[in-house]
Amino acid sequence: MALVVQKFGGTSVADADRMREVADHVKRTRSRGDQVVLVVSAMGKETDELLRLADEVNGEPPGREMDMLITAGERKSIALMCMALHAAGVPADSFTGSQAGFETDNNHRNAKILSVDPHRVRDSVDKDRVAVVAGAQGMSGENNVTFLGRGGSDTTAVALAHGLGADACELYTDVSGVFTTDPRVCPGAKRMESISFDELLEMTAVGCPKPVMRSVEVARAFGVPLHVRSAFTWEPGTWVVEEDPDMERAIIKGIVPDTSQAKVTLSGVQDQPGLAAKVFRTLAEASVNVDMIVQNVSENGRTDISFTVPLDDLEVATSTCETLAETLNFAGVMADPDLGRVSVVGAGMASNPGVAATMFETLAEIDVNIEMIATSPIRISCVVSEADVDRATVALHAAYGLD
Amino acid sequence: MALVVQKFGGTSVADADRMREVADHVKRTRSRGDQVVLVVSAMGKETDELLRLADEVNGEPPGREMDMLITAGERKSIALMCMALHAAGVPADSFTGSQAGFETDNNHRNAKILSVDPHRVRDSVDKDRVAVVAGAQGMSGENNVTFLGRGGSDTTAVALAHGLGADACELYTDVSGVFTTDPRVCPGAKRMESISFDELLEMTAVGCPKPVMRSVEVARAFGVPLHVRSAFTWEPGTWVVEEDPDMERAIIKGIVPDTSQAKVTLSGVQDQPGLAAKVFRTLAEASVNVDMIVQNVSENGRTDISFTVPLDDLEVATSTCETLAETLNFAGVMADPDLGRVSVVGAGMASNPGVAATMFETLAEIDVNIEMIATSPIRISCVVSEADVDRATVALHAAYGLD
Repeated sequence: MALVVQKFGGTSVADADRMREVADHVKRTRSRGDQVVLVVSAMGKETDELLRLADEVNGEPPGREMDMLITAGERKSIALMCMALHAAGVPADSFTGSQAGFETDNNHRNAKILSVDPHRVRDSVDKDRVAVVAGAQGMSGENNVTFLGRGGSDTTAVALAHGLGADACELYTDVSGVFTTDPRVCPGAKRMESISFDELLEMTAVGCPKPVMRSVEVARAFGVPLHVRSAFTWEPGTWVVEEDPDMERAIIKGIVPDTSQAKVTLSGVQDQPGLAAKVFRTLAEASVNVDMIVQNVSENGRTDISFTVPLDDLEVATSTCETLAETLNFAGVMADPDLGRVSVVGAGMASNPGVAATMFETLAEIDVNIEMIATSPIRISCVVSEADVDRATVALHAAYGLD
Repeated sequence: MALVVQKFGGTSVADADRMREVADHVKRTRSRGDQVVLVVSAMGKETDELLRLADEVNGEPPGREMDMLITAGERKSIALMCMALHAAGVPADSFTGSQAGFETDNNHRNAKILSVDPHRVRDSVDKDRVAVVAGAQGMSGENNVTFLGRGGSDTTAVALAHGLGADACELYTDVSGVFTTDPRVCPGAKRMESISFDELLEMTAVGCPKPVMRSVEVARAFGVPLHVRSAFTWEPGTWVVEEDPDMERAIIKGIVPDTSQAKVTLSGVQDQPGLAAKVFRTLAEASVNVDMIVQNVSENGRTDISFTVPLDDLEVATSTCETLAETLNFAGVMADPDLGRVSVVGAGMASNPGVAATMFETLAEIDVNIEMIATSPIRISCVVSEADVDRATVALHAAYGLD
């Protein structure tokens, strides 16, 4: 008999029919002799609707009230989910974040979990009932309701699985697992049976969808086995585990395409100490998420600096740099929005120098020009033209034998 | 400087515009030097919508989950109301029923308040902020969320006013106070400046709309001065107080029309002890709300028993009596749905026998036939044909000098 925490996102509990399907799945899981704790998000587009309501009333609402408002969404879900379970003949109790023992800091809208004391959830499980816990919420030391942020339900589920000593944390989504690459780009994409936490974090960092990075970090820190799977087909998905048993055999796990990159180039920058630091400090203060940075060899005491940012940050990045250009006396600021990135992810890459060579050769063969390169011990990313991302992905997927 | 609890119902906080109007009113109240604590209901038809959602999932939802679901409505209201107050420059904090210190019994869907410890609300007031409290909710001794029932926000407001030692509890509604009679029936109807608790309870019992009887009972028990007023015109309404200062002068305060009465007559009932008791015990167990009962003088050991019920209960009352007719051996059951009632309410009536005489004379003058009569120390009710209710009301309103 295992204890499993099952987390369902908004699309999985969007209406009465979806809730009934989830209730049936819980019933099936219990009929195998397992015990289930559920974590649910707000229904469908409920959170967006609450944000819209808030915006109608106050363009800059106080964080404490925002959290009181948004957490109402998950309360509806847990109550209705319990009703659906009762209707399916499964005894169930709902618990808010506070009732489930989630203590957080007071950082409204994006609170961090400080501790979890799920004794009420445990009592419910011990009575052979299903505890249904509201995702993404908790209570601060001042007894204020707090919200963990968008995607916080994944983190709730992982933290709860750790607090209960559960055997697994199942994250149900609208995709059926983690794929070797985006199936919409590459027909040969395959669902992985397992992946390591580190590999998944690298893939998430370069744009792989779901689960949210924060929950994977918590799962890695506490060694909670994750299972990413589908709430629509109900078939087994991808396990995320501490050490990938396949590590020695196949070092490349996935190819991650990303078409939402942009590049900013500062030309004619004086090559003197501290100047680059000033540029990137200012960009950080403007909340621009700078990824790769390349600096050319200087000529005549002047140099060019290029960096990539997510496409969404390009406007802020450009205007911030233009303001700096006057005070720091550089020649020009150029923005290129038509960039993308393709990344190869896999553990053990550092000890296999051939991986990078294969990547560069493959891209050269299909005439894809590499603008910038960045590496980590388990990832190599190449910035390429946005138009080249898809065919680069398909070619690399084949080159590393993932088809 | 006074401390005022202001309660706003669903229509008063139905959307962003209404919330802004309430926020402006709070600001005006504070600018007079008064301190304000707000109690709000769920927005508009929100509670109905939540009930509909529950019904889609489970026709007989468990009470604990129902309360978790419904109370989400008031949480949205308090958060949005606080945002609207902040936007108007008024500092405010939201509090759920539990945060406001409402302890209740565990009777889900219709919980009773056991105690109120509003120290967090008091702290907020002491910091010159507006506390916005969720209506109709609390927490049971087992730390479960409870709902006080429909109309429970009035009770929350009165209990909070008592717990805070507030100077008044203002109940804002879509009518501008308590009227001498229904203004839709009688153009001469006037808003009363004040009325006693007992008189208002009698008027509520015979169908006068708002505030809910339960809240008036709590206000009377604890001597909380109520002020029933309009959330649309914002003009002063009707005070409900312990002792009506006008009591000696005008003994008749209002005429209450009610067209939703029905009569059931049991004919040929054996005139023996305990038989009537059996009939009315059975009706009570079927939750039929019997009001007036008349028993004719018996002939040949048989008698007729007539009683009135609200029109909504007529079907259940009739079928219940038909089942009894077989076992208790009475001749027939007749139902008359076309009845109404007109009531005259006012303190001091018992010591003024002329009041009843005036009522009967007035009805005789306009050819209204009285079917049944019931009296209390401060009320006389006559059951008449439904078609006669309106003109009886107009005639009585004039006869007692209320025009």
